[in-house]
Amino acid sequence: MSEINNHAEALQHAIRESEEFQALQAAYNKVMNDPSSKEMFDNFRNIQIELQQKQMQGMEITEEEIEQAKKVVEVVQQHEGISDLMTQEQNVNNLINELSQIITKPLEELYQM
Amino acid sequence: MSEINNHAEALQHAIRESEEFQALQAAYNKVMNDPSSKEMFDNFRNIQIELQQKQMQGMEITEEEIEQAKKVVEVVQQHEGISDLMTQEQNVNNLINELSQIITKPLEELYQM
Ligand SMILES: [Ca+2]
Ligand SMILES: [Ca+2]
Repeated sequence: MSEINNHAEALQHAIRESEEFQALQAAYNKVMNDPSSKEMFDNFRNIQIELQQKQMQGMEITEEEIEQAKKVVEVVQQHEGISDLMTQEQNVNNLINELSQIITKPLEELYQM
Repeated sequence: MSEINNHAEALQHAIRESEEFQALQAAYNKVMNDPSSKEMFDNFRNIQIELQQKQMQGMEITEEEIEQAKKVVEVVQQHEGISDLMTQEQNVNNLINELSQIITKPLEELYQM
């Protein structure tokens, strides 16, 4: 376990130092340091989390809720700081997904044997 | 990117060499090398995948399907080889989840700032 954990921590460090994560951190701090941007972003995030939780619990999401969520996305996408933050989040998610694929390759190979 | 990938590949290697993964591989091969165990396991896995896909697509899962799935789980749990395989799968999943938590800590910390 401990050797594996050392490798995971080395990877954690490399992610922290990566261009992608550094850019996300800068974009996040920029939004958080502006009260009106922060409020808009928090509101957007809360709506996202609420819909995700409903979906995970198998609860019905109404057309009205979908319309409302779409409108909020449209508004935040026009906000330069939040739009940039969302782009940087996507970049880091892509990085993490690529790394996950490398890490879980032994499992993928096992089940394809 | 390339330095990060090297760290991810080192971690992949450590997972492959881990006790947990080696035990899973042995349990998997044992089931796959016995035709009747293999058939039972494949049947069980197909039912699981079908239900997961329905759930992900937001389709209704009938009470009958839940009952049927429960019965199949009960039967496979009494099969020593498959029961052992399921235990080893859980152990590897736990290991991967622990490693994921280490790796994604920078993100967790960022959003808690
Ligand atoms: Ca293979
Ligand atoms: Ca913090």
